Amino acid sequence: MNTWHGYTGKILDVDLTSAVVSEAELDRSLAADYMGGKGFGAKILYDQLPTGCEPLSADNILVFATGPLTGTFAPSSGRFEVCTKSPATGLWLDSNCGGYFGPELKFAGYDMVIIRGKAAKPMLLVIDDNKFELKPADDLWGADAIATHRQIKDSFGRDFKVACIGPAGEKGVLFAAIISEYRALGRGGAGAVMGSKNLKAIAVRGNGSIPLFDPDTFMKTCRESFNELANSPDTGGGRQKYGTNVILSLMDEVGLHPVRNFQKGKFDGAASVNEEAIEAHYVRNKACFGCPIYCSKIAEVKEGKYKGSFTEGPEYENVWSFGANCENVDVGAIIQAEYLCDYYGLDAITAGNVIGFLMECVAKGLLPETDIGFPMAFGNDESIINAIHLIGKGQGPGKLWGQGVKKLAEQIEGAQDLAMHVKGLELPAYDPRGSAGMALAYATSDRGGCHLRSWPIGDELLATEGRMDLVSLEFKAELVKTQQDLFCMVNCSGMCLFATFAVNLKQITPFLHAATGLEVYSSSEEVMKIGERVNNLVRLFNIREGLTRDLDTLPKRFFNEPLKEGPSRNRVVELDQLMDEYYMVRGWDKEGAPGKEKLRALGI
Amino acid sequence: MNTWHGYTGKILDVDLTSAVVSEAELDRSLAADYMGGKGFGAKILYDQLPTGCEPLSADNILVFATGPLTGTFAPSSGRFEVCTKSPATGLWLDSNCGGYFGPELKFAGYDMVIIRGKAAKPMLLVIDDNKFELKPADDLWGADAIATHRQIKDSFGRDFKVACIGPAGEKGVLFAAIISEYRALGRGGAGAVMGSKNLKAIAVRGNGSIPLFDPDTFMKTCRESFNELANSPDTGGGRQKYGTNVILSLMDEVGLHPVRNFQKGKFDGAASVNEEAIEAHYVRNKACFGCPIYCSKIAEVKEGKYKGSFTEGPEYENVWSFGANCENVDVGAIIQAEYLCDYYGLDAITAGNVIGFLMECVAKGLLPETDIGFPMAFGNDESIINAIHLIGKGQGPGKLWGQGVKKLAEQIEGAQDLAMHVKGLELPAYDPRGSAGMALAYATSDRGGCHLRSWPIGDELLATEGRMDLVSLEFKAELVKTQQDLFCMVNCSGMCLFATFAVNLKQITPFLHAATGLEVYSSSEEVMKIGERVNNLVRLFNIREGLTRDLDTLPKRFFNEPLKEGPSRNRVVELDQLMDEYYMVRGWDKEGAPGKEKLRALGI
Repeated sequence: MNTWHGYTGKILDVDLTSAVVSEAELDRSLAADYMGGKGFGAKILYDQLPTGCEPLSADNILVFATGPLTGTFAPSSGRFEVCTKSPATGLWLDSNCGGYFGPELKFAGYDMVIIRGKAAKPMLLVIDDNKFELKPADDLWGADAIATHRQIKDSFGRDFKVACIGPAGEKGVLFAAIISEYRALGRGGAGAVMGSKNLKAIAVRGNGSIPLFDPDTFMKTCRESFNELANSPDTGGGRQKYGTNVILSLMDEVGLHPVRNFQKGKFDGAASVNEEAIEAHYVRNKACFGCPIYCSKIAEVKEGKYKGSFTEGPEYENVWSFGANCENVDVGAIIQAEYLCDYYGLDAITAGNVIGFLMECVAKGLLPETDIGFPMAFGNDESIINAIHLIGKGQGPGKLWGQGVKKLAEQIEGAQDLAMHVKGLELPAYDPRGSAGMALAYATSDRGGCHLRSWPIGDELLATEGRMDLVSLEFKAELVKTQQDLFCMVNCSGMCLFATFAVNLKQITPFLHAATGLEVYSSSEEVMKIGERVNNLVRLFNIREGLTRDLDTLPKRFFNEPLKEGPSRNRVVELDQLMDEYYMVRGWDKEGAPGKEKLRALGI
Repeated sequence: MNTWHGYTGKILDVDLTSAVVSEAELDRSLAADYMGGKGFGAKILYDQLPTGCEPLSADNILVFATGPLTGTFAPSSGRFEVCTKSPATGLWLDSNCGGYFGPELKFAGYDMVIIRGKAAKPMLLVIDDNKFELKPADDLWGADAIATHRQIKDSFGRDFKVACIGPAGEKGVLFAAIISEYRALGRGGAGAVMGSKNLKAIAVRGNGSIPLFDPDTFMKTCRESFNELANSPDTGGGRQKYGTNVILSLMDEVGLHPVRNFQKGKFDGAASVNEEAIEAHYVRNKACFGCPIYCSKIAEVKEGKYKGSFTEGPEYENVWSFGANCENVDVGAIIQAEYLCDYYGLDAITAGNVIGFLMECVAKGLLPETDIGFPMAFGNDESIINAIHLIGKGQGPGKLWGQGVKKLAEQIEGAQDLAMHVKGLELPAYDPRGSAGMALAYATSDRGGCHLRSWPIGDELLATEGRMDLVSLEFKAELVKTQQDLFCMVNCSGMCLFATFAVNLKQITPFLHAATGLEVYSSSEEVMKIGERVNNLVRLFNIREGLTRDLDTLPKRFFNEPLKEGPSRNRVVELDQLMDEYYMVRGWDKEGAPGKEKLRALGI
């Protein structure tokens, strides 16, 4: 029985090279200073990863970390993080996932699992309460991610929760995902790292509890938070009905819905792939552990050539990546594409980006269709499905495509400016030309082109109070910095970012303190400081790995090609002033390095 | 600070005649033997109500009771009960409600509020944590229930939760409801009892906690239950999408969807008022306290003559009572009708029954339309709206209609066989001719024609395992008895019946024990015995109030008029054998009185 409120107090440390699995104690000061999740990963990777290590080598480390709220009844607190060095960017990577795996890990008695080295043969890590074992996984190697879940549950029990890779991770696709209970740790290639270590899956089952320091305050905060979530028009309304697709029409209306690999911001086919069109395919809601939002959906194709296809989702990002971005209006193809990404274990944002990029290369005559082997044209749904199969299998030209648009563009003459990525991570579904906030968010995200380190477009488009102008530069640096620290802290805590549409520090701080009893969590300032500390440590990590100011930028298209239609027409991105302001607000120097004073203040 | 796990340990005892409000202690043996909710009400009314007391006199007692799970994070545990002697039936009445009032009462420090006597002038009871006060409510008297909520929250604070009556309760409409946070304690006329006591409303705010005996086991059971609820195709699927309307099409398909005041079992207009048609009006989901099901919906009329109307709902029962039962296909009118029932404070099942009854009387020439004053015809949506206004205001013939179909039929020659009620409570939306289970359920329900004491049609139509034949008599007595005891126990606990679509005693028993620490709750047999004990005590109460075997029956229509269409055509109800078996299974004599042995075994 553990004595750590909110934590189990134990770490599982797995050296795959020597096949030694050992338990370690969680350090109390690590918990106080870095909270959990992304914070634990940042501290471990910063302290232990050899500078310049090859991401797909045995030297890389893969950290599965929960937070102090993971698995508690704080709403929407079913999340866990995977942190590693990304094979896509060569920089920091953390990827966050909901579902049921993170809570189960804590119920089994572990706050964190650290994976090191490389196994000689495919392995499976089984954690059953306090027991753990590395088992040969030759029979699972080659299996798709969905079959892998099924086989593991058939062998060990339905109540085991799984995180695994599919064929893409095994073959080193640089945007291979880890799939957990039909959800994805998608971005940045953590699946390839797992594959490079010959670790096919982790299966965990736990029956323990998570003791709380102050259950009364915790439950009072629960009921306040559940009320806020139920009464929010987002978490208790649109997000429940439409899932993440709730913003689809709005993004198209404001002309920030990227089309044809970011050539346009309004989609002629929007009505065919908007939230109503997607919702018509939902057969039921689904929720992660302890979440009252139920933003997950099960969608099924009821007619047409994709009849019978189904997926958990499709999410906003993928409706876009396989929809507007490829000028595809067939929802059936989108659902099938998302299913195939889960099947092979692929990041669906990057997969859609790669396909959009290929389509533009072909359309512009930079790439002959004979190099592809089948039609690859905007609007052609079969192009999408065929490409995913090749990428997932690492077959033919799919092997090359599996490197992502940055490395792919380096091998196609004249295509470099068509590669829509930041630092090697492909962009998500917001055109930054009409949103100064998103431009800065993309440019400064620690893992590359990402909308989940900060999401300023929420304040620019959706806020009911204090809404900001989309294109004004004013206060955007402050907004992005504050959001980055808040989101980072939430990713340390184990709570879902979506909960913060309705709950805020007024609830999160009491949750953290009531869960753990750690003195430092009694003030919201200190709690936010943890987010800032982790972001600064990650920045130091990235600088050590070669990050310079010139990489804090965006694809040239956004500076040179104005949008041609919609409310954002004629806009391009102006970044220099924003970057100066951002570094200043961060207390970083003009090259983007954290100043000594800032580091001292944060205790780094 | 209370020391009662799961309970607050305190009762508020309000004598309106003397205007004395006092605190009493909850008796530990009452908690152990009768659990809470309906159980508390049964024990108090059985022990304290003078036999034969006039329901609308100062002698009647109104008990607001929570259960040991109310306000905890056991899923869907936001419920409370109101128990009294019904002015509609002259027998036992308990009515159960979700929302937020019950939990708030516990947070304020009270398990139960007992209302006695009659105030000289309209009063409002305000409970603010440990403080309580009776205040004059002349300014609220006459206000509709929705305005009453608003005025109270404006005066005392948005965080007060309200239970109040509307004009119908003030005027003694025998099916007046108590309205709480846009939900209704609908059936049986508790609103009229509250009105007869000159109590307009109770407003409560609380900041306390509910200590748990064994928080670890409680939270483990929470997570198991939330998983079950999320993964159930009902609570995690159809019920979330369609609300209670999820079964509409199915009921029509099997021909048990009552039409034209139970003259038919299949509705020609079904496609216009099925779950898809209703769902098209939903603008968002809503959840009661701590409930992950979110079966509540906010519906709005977007076009047509009822454009702008909205309601929380409409629920399955009311879609039927104002839809098929009146042969009305205008969803807008249904939404407006349900809104008006909340506004006036009326039971919407009975209201629709009264209107369907009037329509049949007019159609059959038993009642001249001149006695009504406007057209009253099946299929006429304006008949419905006009009638509700008159009933709610107690205006003109509405005063008579407000007595319910049983008393109304006594005053219209030849109409007695058209009055669709059991013991004076009008029937809900399942035709018993095609469901032997529902026939027995209606005939034996303690409060009259009700589908919520047992719901055998679930096992007859929906069960995925062990589904029973609809019309077979086999095992129906056992099924109804077991369900009645289970549902009763759930109504004692504070959990919602809908949760039992996914969780069962495997979770409820540990919940009860972990919440309270009461030894008796450590076995499911003992927990179920409480349900049986309460049902037997209520039976004794009803017998004392004049219940005899001949009232355990159904309207003659179901014995004499076979259904003419659908899978249930040619069926009538055969009840005698079922009743004999039921009494036997219950350990009651042939007249339906609990035997001495049974009472001894139950410790009554």
